[in-house]
Amino acid sequence: MGEPVAVIGAGLVGCLASIALAKRGYKVTLFEYREDPRLTSTTDRNLRSINLAISARGISSLEYVDKDVCDRVLEGIIPMKGRMIHDTKGNQEAQNYGLFGECINSIDRAVLNSRLLNELDALENVEVKFGYKLVRINFGDIKQNCIFKTRQNAEESFEFDFVVGSDGAYSTVRAQMQHAVRMDYSQEYIDTCYIELYIPPAKTFNDDFRGPFSISPNHLHIWPRHNYMLIALANSDGSFTSTFFGPWSLVETLNSKSKIEQFFFANFPDAAHLMGLDHAVQAFLNHPKGALMCVECKPYHVPGGKAILIGDAAHSMVPFYGQGMNCGFEDIKVLMNLLDSQSPAEAFESYSQQRHKDLVAIIELAKANYKEMSHKVTSKAFLLRKKLDSILARVLKGKWLPLYTMVSFRADIPYHKAIEIEKRQMKILNFIQAILLALTAAGTIRAFSRLRRLLKRSG
Amino acid sequence: MGEPVAVIGAGLVGCLASIALAKRGYKVTLFEYREDPRLTSTTDRNLRSINLAISARGISSLEYVDKDVCDRVLEGIIPMKGRMIHDTKGNQEAQNYGLFGECINSIDRAVLNSRLLNELDALENVEVKFGYKLVRINFGDIKQNCIFKTRQNAEESFEFDFVVGSDGAYSTVRAQMQHAVRMDYSQEYIDTCYIELYIPPAKTFNDDFRGPFSISPNHLHIWPRHNYMLIALANSDGSFTSTFFGPWSLVETLNSKSKIEQFFFANFPDAAHLMGLDHAVQAFLNHPKGALMCVECKPYHVPGGKAILIGDAAHSMVPFYGQGMNCGFEDIKVLMNLLDSQSPAEAFESYSQQRHKDLVAIIELAKANYKEMSHKVTSKAFLLRKKLDSILARVLKGKWLPLYTMVSFRADIPYHKAIEIEKRQMKILNFIQAILLALTAAGTIRAFSRLRRLLKRSG
Repeated sequence: MGEPVAVIGAGLVGCLASIALAKRGYKVTLFEYREDPRLTSTTDRNLRSINLAISARGISSLEYVDKDVCDRVLEGIIPMKGRMIHDTKGNQEAQNYGLFGECINSIDRAVLNSRLLNELDALENVEVKFGYKLVRINFGDIKQNCIFKTRQNAEESFEFDFVVGSDGAYSTVRAQMQHAVRMDYSQEYIDTCYIELYIPPAKTFNDDFRGPFSISPNHLHIWPRHNYMLIALANSDGSFTSTFFGPWSLVETLNSKSKIEQFFFANFPDAAHLMGLDHAVQAFLNHPKGALMCVECKPYHVPGGKAILIGDAAHSMVPFYGQGMNCGFEDIKVLMNLLDSQSPAEAFESYSQQRHKDLVAIIELAKANYKEMSHKVTSKAFLLRKKLDSILARVLKGKWLPLYTMVSFRADIPYHKAIEIEKRQMKILNFIQAILLALTAAGTIRAFSRLRRLLKRSG
Repeated sequence: MGEPVAVIGAGLVGCLASIALAKRGYKVTLFEYREDPRLTSTTDRNLRSINLAISARGISSLEYVDKDVCDRVLEGIIPMKGRMIHDTKGNQEAQNYGLFGECINSIDRAVLNSRLLNELDALENVEVKFGYKLVRINFGDIKQNCIFKTRQNAEESFEFDFVVGSDGAYSTVRAQMQHAVRMDYSQEYIDTCYIELYIPPAKTFNDDFRGPFSISPNHLHIWPRHNYMLIALANSDGSFTSTFFGPWSLVETLNSKSKIEQFFFANFPDAAHLMGLDHAVQAFLNHPKGALMCVECKPYHVPGGKAILIGDAAHSMVPFYGQGMNCGFEDIKVLMNLLDSQSPAEAFESYSQQRHKDLVAIIELAKANYKEMSHKVTSKAFLLRKKLDSILARVLKGKWLPLYTMVSFRADIPYHKAIEIEKRQMKILNFIQAILLALTAAGTIRAFSRLRRLLKRSG
């Protein structure tokens, strides 16, 4: 059996990392402080999930780890080929994501997590320990001593060659690493609160959508209202998981049945009809209100190959580019690639060096995309840019890449490269605009001088 | 007896805050996880202190809390009227800090801390508990439940109306507050390591300096070497506490007696002579190597008047402007001023609102000043600017304020205002420069045309 390593946190990224490490021969112990989610009833949902959109980076990383695993865990995902914009009258307008029908894919976080855990059960050199809460790591020269609190409130300790921290935005591994390494770290809350809502399946089968869907399952539905918005992503049973995003100050004023009803009537009449007004009221009054935080840190490792951070523990981002999980899965691909040719000490060092600029890039892109989803999608300039992108991409086949395409459909382009390319393209667009303007101006001047000539003649 | 409140951390800021709160009638319990520093022997020094320079903001805040306390705790401080720049040949050159002889003042951290603790002993409504390490705070609607680990490793809990966090850069209060409030937070290490060194008293009384000082006690000595530097501040016994600052990569190479000796010979021959080469070698090999970190956060309080952060817990800064403690003391003055006219809930809220821009400002200034101390002080442009400042300040009496003067000698100008004024002054200086240049250019043109006329005549 291989070297013993620990993975802390059995969320999506922790599970996939465990599979990848096990396949490389490590003896993996995966610790999770919660109970096994497959044993808790579905009515115990925490009402804080935002449906996931898995796209090229996530899929290619899954495939990289194991093609069969990828096929099994992604079974039945629902492709979304674009946004469906809902206006205040209930009119819908589709905007494609890709130029060639590329899709992102809706999947329920709980379903994906359970499937990944099932995959782990089938592996011999992985042990999953639920109900183990990490308390402390003593980093040693050779072994990393990890101390956990168990369900019974007892302390248990284990030794590992290295520790992988995939324990989310509020990571304990990260906090422990900060005792061993000078880590730059920042957390920043954006002034947005989110509330989970639910659109039930339609009562009858809908031939248009091949299922009991009351709106298109193949679009990410957005009700953009500038300062706030509602979104909805399809589930395979015909329901939609919907999420409201808005400033805390607004949400705090929506504190009574009548105020919430009025708010939905004025802003989301069709959504109110789809989910039922009573549900909206109950959700705003009783569902937990989530905060959104960005986390950045550097480095991601403890020198000597002792520990490494991946997923939200290393880079928590706001959900507006649908890249949180995709980026976390890509972390694994990048790290495993390095581990294939280097020792853990070298690989972790290289990872911190080369991954940082990509993580900073996607965190920034995600933050900027809130404005795009909630506001820009309704502007003429945005639609014009989309059209220009589309024309140039068709004319310049593969030489012109819209930013969204690079981020969501091109796993081969690192995030920071995507930003570089986009900047270059913006310059070209501005140049084209200037030429068009000049041509128009020249045309205007020519027209005037012709007019003058005509006047002279007639004079 | 008044409302019970807790102050966590009996450093300089925690002690002064306790005095200020006690004078306002609160029943203060001050917790410190270390033992009473007055009981530990002076040879137990942690060899990590950088001497303090107390200036206008610190002094005025002490006076604001209690004039008599101020006089007692600052007894025997050593005024420093300027920098003394040492070149690699051992030549010294003085640069005054103020335009009118204003001074900053050297004081030993341990001495000041002990004196402040003595002041607390004399107060009836303050209890100081040493050996109490804060573990957790449960924020309640009315009472804040604080749980400590004692020397005996037992848990003890207490209830307070509010908690003041003055527990330094790695604050536990701050970490606990993050469970109760969405706090933006960042920590950033600068690539500089520091090592404490020591210059012993001279063997004989020096008439020039009125004491056994081997170099001027009334200057802050700097050996600026661009990428790194050495500084020294006087102690009242004739010794100097000296500190080396340099990049970690450099310090890591200085790992043998011969390398360190060579380094000192080449860079600090006079300092090596003053402290003894053996001491320098021992310090570099054996003294702890300190890291320098900047911390920013926001807000500083838990709503409802439950907790507030002051001092390094709220704003850890690098030591290059000598403002860390001064700023921490000023926090107390600002906060107490608010508490005099508002409820704790209102006062804490106002504090977060109005103090943030000043804290961000001084953190930035301190970071920028490393370059000034280690590098710029040797440049002609810097000296020219100093001369211009001096001329303009004398001509425009009180209307022209050098930045250093505003930060160090003018407690009435908030840090962020100082930056605003400096920016305006920079614009004026650039304007003057442009005029001078234009005049010179005009002069040159006139000279040329005169030459041409002369040539014509002679031709």
